[in-house]
Amino acid sequence: MEALQLSRGAVGALRIGSKDRTDLSSYTPAKASPGSNVLGVVKRVRCSSSGSGSGVQTVRATERRGAVIDGKSIAGQIRKEIAAEVANLKESFGKVPGLAVVLVGTRKDSETYVRSKKKACEEVGFASFGVTLPEDSTQEDVLNHVKQFNDDPAVHGILVQLPLPKHINEEAVLGAVSYEKDVDGFHPINVGTLCMQGRKPLFVSCTPRGCIELLVRSGVQMKGKRAVVIGRSNIVGTPAAQLLQRQNATVTVVHSATPNPAEIVREADIVIAAVGKAEMVRGDWLKPGAVVIDVGINAVDDPSTKKGYRLVGDVNYAEASEVASMITPVPGGVGPMTIAMLLSNTLDAAKRSFGVES
Amino acid sequence: MEALQLSRGAVGALRIGSKDRTDLSSYTPAKASPGSNVLGVVKRVRCSSSGSGSGVQTVRATERRGAVIDGKSIAGQIRKEIAAEVANLKESFGKVPGLAVVLVGTRKDSETYVRSKKKACEEVGFASFGVTLPEDSTQEDVLNHVKQFNDDPAVHGILVQLPLPKHINEEAVLGAVSYEKDVDGFHPINVGTLCMQGRKPLFVSCTPRGCIELLVRSGVQMKGKRAVVIGRSNIVGTPAAQLLQRQNATVTVVHSATPNPAEIVREADIVIAAVGKAEMVRGDWLKPGAVVIDVGINAVDDPSTKKGYRLVGDVNYAEASEVASMITPVPGGVGPMTIAMLLSNTLDAAKRSFGVES
Repeated sequence: MEALQLSRGAVGALRIGSKDRTDLSSYTPAKASPGSNVLGVVKRVRCSSSGSGSGVQTVRATERRGAVIDGKSIAGQIRKEIAAEVANLKESFGKVPGLAVVLVGTRKDSETYVRSKKKACEEVGFASFGVTLPEDSTQEDVLNHVKQFNDDPAVHGILVQLPLPKHINEEAVLGAVSYEKDVDGFHPINVGTLCMQGRKPLFVSCTPRGCIELLVRSGVQMKGKRAVVIGRSNIVGTPAAQLLQRQNATVTVVHSATPNPAEIVREADIVIAAVGKAEMVRGDWLKPGAVVIDVGINAVDDPSTKKGYRLVGDVNYAEASEVASMITPVPGGVGPMTIAMLLSNTLDAAKRSFGVES
Repeated sequence: MEALQLSRGAVGALRIGSKDRTDLSSYTPAKASPGSNVLGVVKRVRCSSSGSGSGVQTVRATERRGAVIDGKSIAGQIRKEIAAEVANLKESFGKVPGLAVVLVGTRKDSETYVRSKKKACEEVGFASFGVTLPEDSTQEDVLNHVKQFNDDPAVHGILVQLPLPKHINEEAVLGAVSYEKDVDGFHPINVGTLCMQGRKPLFVSCTPRGCIELLVRSGVQMKGKRAVVIGRSNIVGTPAAQLLQRQNATVTVVHSATPNPAEIVREADIVIAAVGKAEMVRGDWLKPGAVVIDVGINAVDDPSTKKGYRLVGDVNYAEASEVASMITPVPGGVGPMTIAMLLSNTLDAAKRSFGVES
């Protein structure tokens, strides 16, 4: 393994996706024997600003850290690419992609999510549609609105904000969204075709699609690598495993009934953690040089902060970044990719509707 | 590990599913360290008849072999159970389950398969429908017949015999089968709901369902075990992996882009081989005590046989049976289960149509 060579004056961390993005197109996770402590080809160096008064930072080469996969920056780049495509479509067809959001009730978190989705739509030039229905709406009310959006040619994507109030059957409502407008990728037809060789789903669930996009844009080769997905949810874990397998990784799914998750995660070149348990994945769960995508966003009490809590992932970042070759932070990793992929799915739907190849 | 204790006079092999079926309800694959040669709790003893003239067989205790999972016998049992249910349905409703088979062209192997499916239907008391269309039928012809069967209330299951002639779009024809009559489990909605927690597919593809049924009926606990599926086909590998995960196994799918299949298979307590390569899985690929389900049916040249070939699985049976705690033979293992599951799927469809709970 090559030694870390950095002269005094090297500044900051490598941030993949940032302006200083490093060319990682030939990146391959390091093949290291378990227990060794060799990192991959991309390394992040923790810098201390206490070295001198000149702004030149002291590099402590013993503190090797994984490169940060900067989801915020990559998502920003994708949104720029989408905005440019929207401008082209508008010029060519006089039409823009349209996204409709159905919100039932007044949950504060749902309102916040919906607002940020609408804002994101507007920023890239999409038409934004939406309906907010009262908490006590009947299932039929909700279904009627879904059907209206199904029939509206200006709407290319429909999103039903979850969770729905308990008296409404989520399965029935999600199943009513036309699979051709199912930008969340939740329809069984889109789930099914994702799992089928030789078939291509119209949409893939946004968060797992975002995970793979981060890996692709960070130059991580998946073919022939061992990947472990922690969590088997419909929204993240299961489709993430399918997507990794489509990239020709050999995939294992670890879940609540797995008695020895650490042992299995340690076999992985690529780890996607989507389990919703704060900092469950410790540094010693990781094979040195592994690439880590952390989907979790968990609030943990922290009286030292203004809000009284802070957000952490499913991975213990401090420990993992000492072992991984690349890692996503929380927040600022997978999170921003979800909305970017929602926009991308909606753009794809519009292009299909306009007869433009994706 | 307990020593093998068998007195002179012990005869024959344990055959799970046969009349001598052993109670394996508490069976758990042996936890053995790699490289050791300890078998699980169920053992088969190879007997030699050369011991004496009295018919008492000499047991050579050094030759430990995995118990045979007798698919033929288990499938026979299932068919008996189905026949009994059909008789009940006929008495209660005056109706029986109906299976329709669509065959296009004159491929000898397809004709043989269709004949045996019809025969199996008749044996359990199903109504058997079918149409044989000429090789040069148009896609529209085929679709029309599928639609007729979709609309026929006496038909509860529809099976399109594959492969179709090349000028016919398989995806279009399979997609035209109502997912409520899709007894092959190939419709994207059934594939999708199989992958979704909290959802239940109407049908699961027959061969992988047969694999799991063999494991269940042999008392193999899957929860918390490591399972490896070799092969990721739509028809076997992918649904088999989903089914194992539904049983709470931790599943890894090995495929053509996996560089080190032997190493990964060796981690498994349960192996399902569905790759279509004669005897690819060698004895030293297996963890001692593993349970092996061999889906492969491959013809290999054998001038010593009348036909000039013999059928072998994806697993080298002679080697594997020395290491595995249980193993399916080829033929007589998974093969007979496929038609049994087709009958079971059709029975389920009929019961749903009659309003009877499965």
